[in-house]
Formats: sequence, C-alpha cells, structure tokens
Amino acid sequence: MISLSCPAPITGTGSVLLGHGSGGKLSAELLRGIFLRAFDNPLLARLEDQAVVEVAGARLAFTTDSFVVKPLFFRGGDIGSLAVHGTVNDLAMGGAQPLALSAAFILEEGFPLADLRRITDSMARAAAAAGTTIVTGDTKVVERRSGDGVYVTTTGIGLVAAGVSLSAAQARPGDAVVLSGAIGDHGIAILSAREGLELDGDIASDSAPLNGLVEAILAVTREVRAMRDPTRGGLASTLNEIAAQSHVGITLSEDAIRVHAGVRGACEILGLDPLHVANEGKLVALVPADCADEIVQAMQRHPLGREAAIIGAVTERDPGLVTMRTTFGTTRIVDMLAGDQLPRIC
Amino acid sequence: MISLSCPAPITGTGSVLLGHGSGGKLSAELLRGIFLRAFDNPLLARLEDQAVVEVAGARLAFTTDSFVVKPLFFRGGDIGSLAVHGTVNDLAMGGAQPLALSAAFILEEGFPLADLRRITDSMARAAAAAGTTIVTGDTKVVERRSGDGVYVTTTGIGLVAAGVSLSAAQARPGDAVVLSGAIGDHGIAILSAREGLELDGDIASDSAPLNGLVEAILAVTREVRAMRDPTRGGLASTLNEIAAQSHVGITLSEDAIRVHAGVRGACEILGLDPLHVANEGKLVALVPADCADEIVQAMQRHPLGREAAIIGAVTERDPGLVTMRTTFGTTRIVDMLAGDQLPRIC
Repeated sequence: MISLSCPAPITGTGSVLLGHGSGGKLSAELLRGIFLRAFDNPLLARLEDQAVVEVAGARLAFTTDSFVVKPLFFRGGDIGSLAVHGTVNDLAMGGAQPLALSAAFILEEGFPLADLRRITDSMARAAAAAGTTIVTGDTKVVERRSGDGVYVTTTGIGLVAAGVSLSAAQARPGDAVVLSGAIGDHGIAILSAREGLELDGDIASDSAPLNGLVEAILAVTREVRAMRDPTRGGLASTLNEIAAQSHVGITLSEDAIRVHAGVRGACEILGLDPLHVANEGKLVALVPADCADEIVQAMQRHPLGREAAIIGAVTERDPGLVTMRTTFGTTRIVDMLAGDQLPRIC
Repeated sequence: MISLSCPAPITGTGSVLLGHGSGGKLSAELLRGIFLRAFDNPLLARLEDQAVVEVAGARLAFTTDSFVVKPLFFRGGDIGSLAVHGTVNDLAMGGAQPLALSAAFILEEGFPLADLRRITDSMARAAAAAGTTIVTGDTKVVERRSGDGVYVTTTGIGLVAAGVSLSAAQARPGDAVVLSGAIGDHGIAILSAREGLELDGDIASDSAPLNGLVEAILAVTREVRAMRDPTRGGLASTLNEIAAQSHVGITLSEDAIRVHAGVRGACEILGLDPLHVANEGKLVALVPADCADEIVQAMQRHPLGREAAIIGAVTERDPGLVTMRTTFGTTRIVDMLAGDQLPRIC
C-alpha cells in the first residue's frame, strides 16, 4: 500500500514517472490525485498498509502488493520470498497473523521455467516459515519486452489480534519510537546486485517475515499505537507519514539508529541517505513511553529484533515534522524521499 | 485462477510461451508442473476459481487475477472494469457476494495519467455496480518496455452464501448444463479492437458482474453443483475441466448454444471456434435436471440472463470427455483450447 503525505492533487495531463513508484512524495501525490479520488471510501482513506474488514464479527486484515524487484535474485532473497514477506509484513503491521495468501504472476514470454520453479519454491518456503500457505493464484503471459521476466502480486488475509487497534494516526506526544534493527540492508543489497558493486561486508537483504516479532511485541502490551515496516522511501518516509497522519512531531536521535558499516559505506559512496533506503525485515513501532523498555527487551529476545532500540520520541510541537539530533549535536529536518533514489527495489 | 486438465508435469528446462497464459492445455500444464507442485495444499488443489477459507465460522471466498488485456480500452469496457468484473465473477462462481476488493497496479513509465484516471474511474463504477468497493491497493512503476501501459491485479474476498457448496468436482450424471447467454463476444470485441477489424454488428464485450445473476439462481435452489465463468479458453475449456474433475461425460447440443451473428461471422473468417473464445459476463451452471427449467426461467428474468438456456447434459459414459451434437446431426469431440488462439484477452 502506498501512503500519503502531500496534499496536492494531480490535475495535469502528465505521465507516469519512475518516481511515482518510489514510496516517497510522488507516490503520495499519485495516491491522492488519482486513487483516493476514484476509489473514495473510508477504509482506503485510512491509508494503512492493510484494510480491516469485518467478517462474521472478526476483524480481517486485507492487503496487496505487486513486486517488480530487479534483479529477481539477490543476496538474501528473491522476488518470491520478498513478495511473501512483504504481504505477511503488511498484515503484521496491522496486528494480524496471516490466514492465507494469493499469488498472481505476470510472466514474460521466454522466461526460463527453471527460474519460475526456483521462485515458486522460494515462495512456498517463505510462506511456510511465516505459518501460512498460498491457496489461490493466477498466471498471465505477455510478449517479450512487455514485461521483465516475472512480476508477482501477492495478497494476504489475516485475523487482527483481539484488543489490538493499530493506526498511523494514533501516535501521541510522549510516545517512544522503537526500531527493530539496522536500516538500509535491503536497498543496498539490491543496488549492489543490480550494478555488480563490490561492497564491504557482503550486504544481504534483510527480507524476513515480521509476524513472529509482532506477536512478541503484542505479548507485552496491546497498547501499541502504530507499526510500520519502512520499505520504499525508507524510515524517513514512514515516519513522515506517521507524523502527518497523527499531527505530531517526531524527534530522532541519530546515535540510536543502527546502520551496518557496509551500508553506511555504500551510502557515502553513492550519495544516499540510509534513512531513505528500503528495508524488508524491519519495523518501527510507536508505543507508550512507559512500556517502551519492556517492548525493546522482548524484541531483542526475538531473532529479528536483536538490534532493537528506542530511536526517538513523539512531540507536540512541529506537527507533521520529523527532525533528527545528529551525532555532531546539530538538528536537521528528516524529509520524505523526493524523486526516485532506487527504482524497482521491491 | 488457472485450471487443470492435463496430467503431464513440466520437467524440462523450457521457457514460458504465450500459450502458457491461454487458459487451455499449456496453462494447465504450467499449473500442475510448477504451481501445484510448489504450493502443494488442499485448498489450491481444489482448482476452483476461488479458495474458501474459514474465518470466525464463516466461509470466506478469496480469489485473485492479473489483467494484461490489450488494448486497454475496447468496446464494452476497459482493463479497469474487466478487472473488477473478473474478480467479482470468480467470487460469484463460488456462491459468494463480494465484501471488498484490492487493486495493485504495475505502471509503465510514460503512461498517460489521464488514461490511469479513466481506468480507475471505470473500476470505481464497476465496483459500485457490483455492490462493493476497492479498500486497499498498491502501485509500482517499471521502465519503458518493461511493461505495457498498465497491468492490474485485483483480489476479492466475499462471503459464501449459507447452504451453498459449489465445486467443479460435483457434476453428476443426469445433471443439466445451463448457459446464461451467447458466447464469444468478449474475445471477438478484443480482437476487433486490437486488429482494427470492421465487423458486422459492432460486437461489444459482454464484461459484466455476475453476482446478481448468481443470487437469482441460488434463490431457486442451493442444490447447484458447480458454476464457472468461461473466460480464457472459452466454454470448451471450462466444460472439459468440469468433466475431468467430476469424472463425468458432458454432451452438448450445438443448436442450444447461442452465438451472435457478428461473432459467428468473425469466427468463420478468422478460423476460430466460438467454443474457445473468451467470455467475461457469462456463466455455465451444472444443476440437478429437475430444477433446470425453473433456474433458466429465473435467469431469463435477470438482465444478464435473458438468453439463458439448457445446452447439454452430464452423462456417466465417456468420463472426462465433452461431445457435441452438431446442427448437422453429427457428433464431435469438444476439446480444450490448445496453443494460444488469442493472447492477452484478459
């Protein structure tokens, strides 16, 4: 699900830019200017990573994502595992455990069947690891140069845990901002695979299913305000969305945000801000300050949360603004991603 | 959802052909050789157009389809309305009314935003007409020549009506085969738009939401065995799937199968069999013979079933085989579509 920040509707007669898929400002403009306008309804307008639909008295989370990552295979995963993790994580960010997934494939004529088999095997393993299965699907084929090997669209349904109600509009002044681990691994792993870069430390994607980590968090308290996985647009874009939707400020402490040395080095060479680089196995949670320490400890006991830390706080002042106290003691504004730093990252 | 017929697994090291997306024999081979093997589970193995998942004691239908139709706009619809109808219909064929839809877009760089707006407006209207809404979505952008304007993947969830249990494996000898109207309109409308053919009678796609018609059928009896919308691969492929899954024969009467004059003429010129041409607003139902007349009458009172008729019967002999008594009094075998007659029809 793409997310909102900019209020400007699209009224012109322009055309689609790569940046419209960035998860940053242009994506938000497209969402507001076209999709929200056409599909106007309160569930979509919540702008969460998943819709929550009432079914027989239960709350069913429902989410979809297309995956166009390039290359299809990379260190730490492939388009198949990424598609499963992405959808499981969008359910998890709503406090839901997956019930079932669907998978729709758009294949380019000439795509090797051996690669398709490798991808579907990877999807099956990823689904099993997240405790779910792929129960329905579809396949279409397009001519050469009308696709790029394979695109996968996964959709998930899941049950929201009782007593849990998460929303990016619920952050409150005083809340703590908790991050589950180091940022930027996925984006740099993709970039390195695509461009054949030789980077220090063999950076692998962090692609992983977060539903187990979410379960560990919700076992501490159901009073969590919001959870998000900072994918396209990175941690900066995700926190800007939360600040905008909750009408609060967010202050971060650069010291507390882990960036692995190889990612930091690659970002410096390439002129990227790690805060804008995509993650596929990290979550940021907005939680009441008085249970933040206990949540971090519970996360650290989970294999996917070992590097969890409190990275900032929610403030009443500067609503809609994310700022960061740098390691040099200065303060800077942390903006949404503008343009498209890394196309086809997921 | 693609469907099964051929038992041969894919073991070679080949590559994807356009025919793998045809809805015919090659699609069935791909399904069995790759997808069923990787995603092995009983829900998927049912090979219905939708999976049915238990949620809080209710039966939830869940279905997904990618749409790659070319051209994007055609007489009688566009990729947006087609995507909504296709998903609503896959739910309806399981006896379910739609609860909510998702929509994921893969946009090609340079695609006109005005066209995207036209498509999303069309989707919103189609969803409203089917009594549902699009509650969550996603957008990705790929480079020029890595896509073809826009591909849309819609997923639907819906509640299966109480007391209804439909399956292509349930046809029984003696059942009647009921068809809701004339066949081949969608495929010929697409072909005509794509190739700029001038055809008699201005053939328009029959793309339409069938959930209302299904409601009218189920109001007569809940004892319907199976329903399918004969899309890719046409009526012939759909009936072959039912015959194979139910281990029964099916005999058709050519006289009873309506084909509009313009479609018949186009098929003759182009060497196509109307039984293999795609439909997007028709359904075929396998029903107990003793309520077939009443069902047909109920269908004829619905705007989308005015041309409904009994077109054949289920037999014990020749299990897996579909035959047709022609207008000339001879009998011929009606086979699944082989190869790909009309790529990118939906």
